[in-house]
Amino acid sequence: MIETLNKAFCALPGVGKKTAQRFVYHLLERNRDGGMELAKALIDAMEQVGHCSSCRTLSEKDICNICINNHRTNTQLCIVETPSDIHAIEQSSAYKGKYFVLSGYLSPIDGIGASELGLDALEQKLHKQGIEEIILATNATIEGEVTAHYISNMAKQFDIRITRIAHGLPIGGELEYADINTIAHALSGRKDYNY
Amino acid sequence: MIETLNKAFCALPGVGKKTAQRFVYHLLERNRDGGMELAKALIDAMEQVGHCSSCRTLSEKDICNICINNHRTNTQLCIVETPSDIHAIEQSSAYKGKYFVLSGYLSPIDGIGASELGLDALEQKLHKQGIEEIILATNATIEGEVTAHYISNMAKQFDIRITRIAHGLPIGGELEYADINTIAHALSGRKDYNY
Ligand SMILES: [Zn+2]
Ligand SMILES: [Zn+2]
Repeated sequence: MIETLNKAFCALPGVGKKTAQRFVYHLLERNRDGGMELAKALIDAMEQVGHCSSCRTLSEKDICNICINNHRTNTQLCIVETPSDIHAIEQSSAYKGKYFVLSGYLSPIDGIGASELGLDALEQKLHKQGIEEIILATNATIEGEVTAHYISNMAKQFDIRITRIAHGLPIGGELEYADINTIAHALSGRKDYNY
Repeated sequence: MIETLNKAFCALPGVGKKTAQRFVYHLLERNRDGGMELAKALIDAMEQVGHCSSCRTLSEKDICNICINNHRTNTQLCIVETPSDIHAIEQSSAYKGKYFVLSGYLSPIDGIGASELGLDALEQKLHKQGIEEIILATNATIEGEVTAHYISNMAKQFDIRITRIAHGLPIGGELEYADINTIAHALSGRKDYNY
């Protein structure tokens, strides 16, 4: 039972055997209530959290709080790789438009193509709504650049400004770990995207 | 629901808001099965893992695997602060006796006295069984030293060799984070304890 719990904790990113064991002993010796609360919170979240049907971020409701917010402009759409990226950008308070979350990045080797990524849904969005600018905020990795390039190519057919978030972000690093000032800077310094 | 899960993860030692969020997004986006397994493992462990009635370490059974093991000598008793310490010593393979787990260390300020620590149970053990040596393996902290001193004083009444694990362990550090060679060295270099 202790061993099973150890292994289960190792499913968390960055958690190895030693850290898992610290978690287990801590909960068993000092905080069983906390352990039970964590279990319940896990079950609730795993069973009930879905994705916003508009932007595809993680959401408990059909439409997330950002998509439903009338004080945010519908003319800008920021395209990110993960819900964590939205959270990071929101922390910077530098953006007041809407988002679209890709399901990762293009990776043909792993079988992740345009439709797996949700790019057909994105294309429909660009058709229907009064979007004037899309901001490509995929990560500054090879896959992120390829994805940005692919989307800008697809969006050419619409009369839309296409921008890329500025590379104040550390190259090769990931958006969700950047500090808020770097993110704010990168957003304000965004440039038209020429492919 | 996401926020509740974030907070629940922060109950784990060394886990702050950023790490908790990484855990949450990772499980929700990539490994919901892993999240459910973790929840179930937590419930099983929190509800069913108890303490060995002999050595007081964490155990799923009334008597733990070490206490029940006939190939280990009953003549040596190693006294540690936590179940993690047993695990660390076992990894070193340098010890083949039995253990006794204190409930932490003496700390009158926090209301942890001799009985809270289980020292009365330890005294009964020394009365009944054929123990020839106790090895004081409390940490090299002030509290650990005070506890070691207290126990050696209590054990004086019995005809028992009292030793202290050698301070090859980093001073001020904690046993459970030491590497196995340091632990093996500290055990073999143990000295008679003069108080
Ligand atoms: Zn949304
Ligand atoms: Zn035991």
